[in-house]
Amino acid sequence: MIDSLIDKIIGMQNPTCVGLDTHFDYLPDEMREDISTFEGASERIVEFNMNIIDKVCDIVPAVKVQVAYYEMYGYEGMRAFDYTVNYARGRGLTVIADCKRNDIGSTAACYSSAYLGKTDVGGKILKAFPSDMLTVNGYLGSDGIKPFLDDIKANDKSIFILVKTSNPSSGEFQNLKLEDGKYIYEKMGALVSEWGKDSIGKYGYSEVGAVVGATHPEEAEKLRAEMPNTFFLIPGYGAQGGSARMLKVCFDERGLGGVVNSSRGIICAYRKPEYRGMNYYDAARAACLDMQQDLLGAIGKMGR
Amino acid sequence: MIDSLIDKIIGMQNPTCVGLDTHFDYLPDEMREDISTFEGASERIVEFNMNIIDKVCDIVPAVKVQVAYYEMYGYEGMRAFDYTVNYARGRGLTVIADCKRNDIGSTAACYSSAYLGKTDVGGKILKAFPSDMLTVNGYLGSDGIKPFLDDIKANDKSIFILVKTSNPSSGEFQNLKLEDGKYIYEKMGALVSEWGKDSIGKYGYSEVGAVVGATHPEEAEKLRAEMPNTFFLIPGYGAQGGSARMLKVCFDERGLGGVVNSSRGIICAYRKPEYRGMNYYDAARAACLDMQQDLLGAIGKMGR
Repeated sequence: MIDSLIDKIIGMQNPTCVGLDTHFDYLPDEMREDISTFEGASERIVEFNMNIIDKVCDIVPAVKVQVAYYEMYGYEGMRAFDYTVNYARGRGLTVIADCKRNDIGSTAACYSSAYLGKTDVGGKILKAFPSDMLTVNGYLGSDGIKPFLDDIKANDKSIFILVKTSNPSSGEFQNLKLEDGKYIYEKMGALVSEWGKDSIGKYGYSEVGAVVGATHPEEAEKLRAEMPNTFFLIPGYGAQGGSARMLKVCFDERGLGGVVNSSRGIICAYRKPEYRGMNYYDAARAACLDMQQDLLGAIGKMGR
Repeated sequence: MIDSLIDKIIGMQNPTCVGLDTHFDYLPDEMREDISTFEGASERIVEFNMNIIDKVCDIVPAVKVQVAYYEMYGYEGMRAFDYTVNYARGRGLTVIADCKRNDIGSTAACYSSAYLGKTDVGGKILKAFPSDMLTVNGYLGSDGIKPFLDDIKANDKSIFILVKTSNPSSGEFQNLKLEDGKYIYEKMGALVSEWGKDSIGKYGYSEVGAVVGATHPEEAEKLRAEMPNTFFLIPGYGAQGGSARMLKVCFDERGLGGVVNSSRGIICAYRKPEYRGMNYYDAARAACLDMQQDLLGAIGKMGR
């Protein structure tokens, strides 16, 4: 699946991922009028997502759907998540389910079934939230990762494991130094490389990727050097303060190696002065094009 | 909320938590007949859970509902999760939503709203999956924990943060040594103590608890000494190999300090030779009583 994402990034010359972190309050006033139930909110969120997807699917390769923004609307919200994931895949987008799931092996297998695999109900094979890629937290070690590796192999999927996250306090734990002089985030990076070594594709990148925040360029640069076969999912661009200049270090000499997420910067673009007067989906498209130019300017041609 | 759980543990003389990790395949054959949809499976899982809850709610203080086993049945599964959580609370049980959620601050706030707080939809205040306690992964540091601390305070809730997990490979990452000679799991423990220091209740235990596996007694003993104000959620008893003798070290001189989870050992008890001939809910009750005796034998009277 990572090869297919990189193919699209090169084809579109755009390593942008649109984050569908669709809080109901992000919707235009007129879409929120008279809505006061989870069911109503979820329907409107789906409508909003569909319109954004339709407007960007020819210029961006991927969307990242942040499940927390759907769970907060209950099971109706999860229905909206499901609909969004399926709709985006139907429009040709690579769908990253941003769930950061983690548990012991037997339970991790359930999560993997839910997002990357299949669920057997009385002999009938069903799919819960069929995504292309999933974010995962590696705190539990190998046996909590193994079920995902099995589904990656069986079903051509990918995962991204948290290595160095984009939030301000990520260093509090992740930047503690180990006795061998390495930092925790580097050690997690080494585990990720190890877990991915059997699934390296045609571009030299593995199906087991890493989440590396745009907001921490020093660490990102180090990780790029230490993890030459690991593709990065890069959050933190835009609203969180990461710039194209800062995240450039995540890319290799071919202009490959990562996909950059922006959520509020795109889906809430219609509220920014520079897109005033545009409706939300046209503003989202314009913001994607602006982001593409910004990234191209810093990274250069992709696949050169 | 931790005081209320400890009150119940003392009142019932039972620190058992029943894990409702209800895989559809765990149901008796006759309950699975002719079912081949997520909706059908979810209805039967709810029926199974309700019957277990009815049979154990007078002898155990808490249930832990493992969300992965519901997500794998799609949004219908999440509806079953919601129903189970609400039903168990209605029967007076303390409900631990075992979700191991984690993300950057703004997103962690959505998770916290979903399980411990409220969601505002057009001015109407709704609750997604209203639980008493939630498991959380602390890899992202303070700003990923803060939203949960806010909801703990505002709504009288608790969280349990992963410190030393019960799975075989947990040491691969958690037992790496830091430059100051401490292990990663101890450092996470120290962060957990710090996050909990403002919410210590009448028994000396904080609303910010720790997940500490019964399968690693050496680490558990160390953590009990280093975290005197932290209540433990203790998985790994039974099916995973942890015994009452092993987990005894998690308890203080009053016989307090933890709640011990058993999932398959209780909900699948009807399949074990020792409960043969009993239906699943009577077997579950019998297994709870046996577990209570086993724990009391090792730990002694609670609240002495």
